[in-house]
Amino acid sequence: MAGKRQTFRIALAQVNLCVGDLDGNKRKIIEYIHRARENRADLIAFPELSISGYPPEDLLLKRSFVKECNDVLETVVRETSGLIAVIGFPYAEGSPRDEVLLYNGAAIAKNGSLVSVYKKILLPNYGVFDEKRYFTAGNTPSVLEIGGFRFAVNVCEDIWKPGVTRDQVLSGGALVILNISSSPYCAGKGLERQHMVSARARENDAAVCLLNLVGGQDELVFDGESLVVSPDGNLLARAPQFEEALLTVDIDLDEIARMRASRSGSSAGRGSCDRGRVVGLGDWKDAGLRDRGEFREPLIPVISHRLSYVGEIHGALVLGTRDYVRKNGFQKVAIGLSGGIDSAIVAVIAVDALGPENVIGVMMPSRFTSEQSARDAESLSRKLGIKTMTVPIEEIFSEYLDTLSAVFEGREPDITEENVQARIRGNLLMALSNKFGWLVLTTGNKSEIAVGYSTLYGDTAGGFAVVKDVPKTLIYELAKFKNEQAGGPLIPESIIAKAPSAELKPNQKDTDSLPPYEILDPIIEAYVEEDKSREEMVNEGYDEKTVDRVVWMVEKSEYKRRQAPPGIKITPKAFGKDRRMPITNLYRMKKKEG
Amino acid sequence: MAGKRQTFRIALAQVNLCVGDLDGNKRKIIEYIHRARENRADLIAFPELSISGYPPEDLLLKRSFVKECNDVLETVVRETSGLIAVIGFPYAEGSPRDEVLLYNGAAIAKNGSLVSVYKKILLPNYGVFDEKRYFTAGNTPSVLEIGGFRFAVNVCEDIWKPGVTRDQVLSGGALVILNISSSPYCAGKGLERQHMVSARARENDAAVCLLNLVGGQDELVFDGESLVVSPDGNLLARAPQFEEALLTVDIDLDEIARMRASRSGSSAGRGSCDRGRVVGLGDWKDAGLRDRGEFREPLIPVISHRLSYVGEIHGALVLGTRDYVRKNGFQKVAIGLSGGIDSAIVAVIAVDALGPENVIGVMMPSRFTSEQSARDAESLSRKLGIKTMTVPIEEIFSEYLDTLSAVFEGREPDITEENVQARIRGNLLMALSNKFGWLVLTTGNKSEIAVGYSTLYGDTAGGFAVVKDVPKTLIYELAKFKNEQAGGPLIPESIIAKAPSAELKPNQKDTDSLPPYEILDPIIEAYVEEDKSREEMVNEGYDEKTVDRVVWMVEKSEYKRRQAPPGIKITPKAFGKDRRMPITNLYRMKKKEG
Repeated sequence: MAGKRQTFRIALAQVNLCVGDLDGNKRKIIEYIHRARENRADLIAFPELSISGYPPEDLLLKRSFVKECNDVLETVVRETSGLIAVIGFPYAEGSPRDEVLLYNGAAIAKNGSLVSVYKKILLPNYGVFDEKRYFTAGNTPSVLEIGGFRFAVNVCEDIWKPGVTRDQVLSGGALVILNISSSPYCAGKGLERQHMVSARARENDAAVCLLNLVGGQDELVFDGESLVVSPDGNLLARAPQFEEALLTVDIDLDEIARMRASRSGSSAGRGSCDRGRVVGLGDWKDAGLRDRGEFREPLIPVISHRLSYVGEIHGALVLGTRDYVRKNGFQKVAIGLSGGIDSAIVAVIAVDALGPENVIGVMMPSRFTSEQSARDAESLSRKLGIKTMTVPIEEIFSEYLDTLSAVFEGREPDITEENVQARIRGNLLMALSNKFGWLVLTTGNKSEIAVGYSTLYGDTAGGFAVVKDVPKTLIYELAKFKNEQAGGPLIPESIIAKAPSAELKPNQKDTDSLPPYEILDPIIEAYVEEDKSREEMVNEGYDEKTVDRVVWMVEKSEYKRRQAPPGIKITPKAFGKDRRMPITNLYRMKKKEG
Repeated sequence: MAGKRQTFRIALAQVNLCVGDLDGNKRKIIEYIHRARENRADLIAFPELSISGYPPEDLLLKRSFVKECNDVLETVVRETSGLIAVIGFPYAEGSPRDEVLLYNGAAIAKNGSLVSVYKKILLPNYGVFDEKRYFTAGNTPSVLEIGGFRFAVNVCEDIWKPGVTRDQVLSGGALVILNISSSPYCAGKGLERQHMVSARARENDAAVCLLNLVGGQDELVFDGESLVVSPDGNLLARAPQFEEALLTVDIDLDEIARMRASRSGSSAGRGSCDRGRVVGLGDWKDAGLRDRGEFREPLIPVISHRLSYVGEIHGALVLGTRDYVRKNGFQKVAIGLSGGIDSAIVAVIAVDALGPENVIGVMMPSRFTSEQSARDAESLSRKLGIKTMTVPIEEIFSEYLDTLSAVFEGREPDITEENVQARIRGNLLMALSNKFGWLVLTTGNKSEIAVGYSTLYGDTAGGFAVVKDVPKTLIYELAKFKNEQAGGPLIPESIIAKAPSAELKPNQKDTDSLPPYEILDPIIEAYVEEDKSREEMVNEGYDEKTVDRVVWMVEKSEYKRRQAPPGIKITPKAFGKDRRMPITNLYRMKKKEG
């Protein structure tokens, strides 16, 4: 034993679970417990609310659901022989006769028994989060002790502010902090998480492990990228983004203890032990764990490469699409291909997510479809290797005009006739969906959706809106990224080069109705994502009239967004649960009166 | 003065405000302040968050919005000469340099100055409410004192539990409690509110006034029915349901003081004055109020008649429809009339809400429309006195079948062809909406929406879903109610008598696909509104197979509801913000495995 360093082997199970899939989640958790035991880990951790999937939303209001989660937890706990397992689950405390309080819990199991449950202390109730709708906040920053070594568990939000971790280290004497998260992605979030975890480690002279869920759930993508950071804030290990992984690391406990002792100025706890909050797990061997004297081949820590800014957005869109399609039981998807850039990008992402054999491009030309657009859609489909079909809308459109001619008598053509075309396409795509069981992917981008430049039940008709949170300017960056990745024009240059058009009337251009996207997108970002006021935007140099027009368009089209399909959040504030605006809303919508 | 009773005249302004309409809300509030002064009231109260409208949702995240609300409040406060005014508004405390905390505030103004702000203590964050998303909770159950008399203000949720009111009476010595609410309607809520207010009065030997907002806001209707209850729990005054009113009552302060003194067993505060929480308003006259010696003709209190169970649901639907249409700037509405009961009820409600001159019935017959249905739609329209137009879908439908014949080759007709018809109708209605500026009202009821018996972008296409929270069996009760009210078959008996059918294929009946509504509706109520489990429902005697089928249908159609238009909540749990279920959700959706 002499000379051997005491290490603690932690396995972070960055798994892709599914909301409500209690059987599937159970099987995956047990499978990973077995893998961790084979890897001779001392502890395995699973993400926040693993048993239920995250976020379970109002399933949590069903007592039967919470009860079944608890049954699954009991089964899983019995599988933990020879190690410690930390598992997120909804924890109902109290007997059915009393008031039952629900907590966002982390079960701590050891060698087949449930030892303790940590209750999440900080409950996020902003942005996409509604945790105060469901959970009571815990109030005990407890720590765990095994063989004289102390570590602590906390859950997601708990680590984003200094308090909980500081309590666990200062009063509790924890050397290692394990945070189990289900932290949703937006662009740049991974780096932000890494900086935050490093700060928490340095503040406390503690090793910090952050385990994050991976996978898509409705509008959210969980990006994984679990982290282990040393007490000096340096990265020890990192799991990949957007993939499952079992990130296993040896944490050198002697090193941390030595480091902490040597830092005289440090206030990090050196045994100031608040016994009331310490959950004792016994000695290593009593705990059913590996004998410390037994040799274990040391692990080489893995630091996965991070994707580029655009690369990670692409990764999020691919995973979000794949998981929405598959978890909802679909095999194939249909996409209306117009020859424009938005439908091209959606097709590319669908192919990356599902393979070309599962993507059907549907061309629905009209009298306003240019030859170039038809050629571009054809050429893109060939490059992607996807099946296509052509269903022209001309005859149907003529029939609508005939049928409506009596009631429309004396009226000039206007946007009505444009919308009729878009809705014919929506109807045709949905007919294909009904007949063949394909999920329809819609192609609207965030710029269009923000200002309502879309036809409700027309181009917005479909099950999943892949790029609904991607501004148009970023759509172009994604095209560039994919063409660079492909080493050539996977997306034909003419698609990228041409001026955007809905092709619903002769010579139509998006800029007939909208400011250029280079001007529009920053205003949308300032107004929607940053909640800046008209005055702030004007003071920052945006054109006053353009700002007023954009604000008006954004608020006037809330009703369209309320009926739009879900799609993947990639920005700090997506339309959806992130931004809950009234439809009936006269703020700045009327001319100033009085 | 001798022999004169000391009274406190409270005017409850049960007003219809609009979210975001700061100018309009300001004008209405000032108008009512003038009316109250003319009525020689000592105090006028306005509902919770009057300045902003309720619920302002994420408008509250815009600093500029909160700032403008404060500006409006300042203007309103200057109008309060000669009386006290209590006005709900979003209250930002702190300087922009520090952290600004937002409270759900009640401004207490007196004779032109702001005296104090009460901060709502209990913030609802369940059901349709998200108040913890926006507000910090207050923690001071303060009271107000004028001329030695104490009263207290609290806000909505604060009065639904005993604690806050008890503190204001026991520690604060308040004789009168004034609660300003924006309490949304569901069937029976008014009576529940009255029982609760009576209980609060009796517990505390205090007079209780509950002022409620009136009006429709997206999916919510605020039903008014403001109340004043004496310390023995008896109703002193009640404003009407679903209408604006200025409910003015004289509260006999001597009587309350005497009553309180005489009840030896009562623990209600008799001068146990916690000075820290008392906001002094001075003496009556110093406060700029009426001289107590001056004669004031006593008021006869008004107790408005309550509507019947079905009558109040009708009232909620009418007000909710009128306000959604008008506040969103529409004049006229279009309704697809099928000859069935759902579209008949929606047409009747639209006529009650907007007048027959603003309702257009659109008949869109197909090869499957029975002659009886066509006759019924025609006859209903005549009775309602609404304009109709007929736009047959036959030619367009044939053209769809032709166009799709190539890609559908070898496939049998199925539900696809049914949905195509419904979506043609959706497209036609939206074309009329686009061309003429009419809002389309959809006609789907809660039973259909619960089990997904509808065509997305077809019969669900439209701006507002009037009866989306009305189960089919209640649709029939509404028809009976309206015919009784009309003293004859306003809705033709044949519409009520015939078996429900979508008429999308030959001899189709709803019962081909669904259990009879008398069986379906109670299961939906148990499962959706009461969150009962499969096992609980089976134990209560529901057929096991039917329960399983209904649960499966409800959960499988969440994606349709996510894209459905908003509509009026009338049950304890409506689809919408009330029930936040994941779309991707495998709970009970897979065959039991393992």
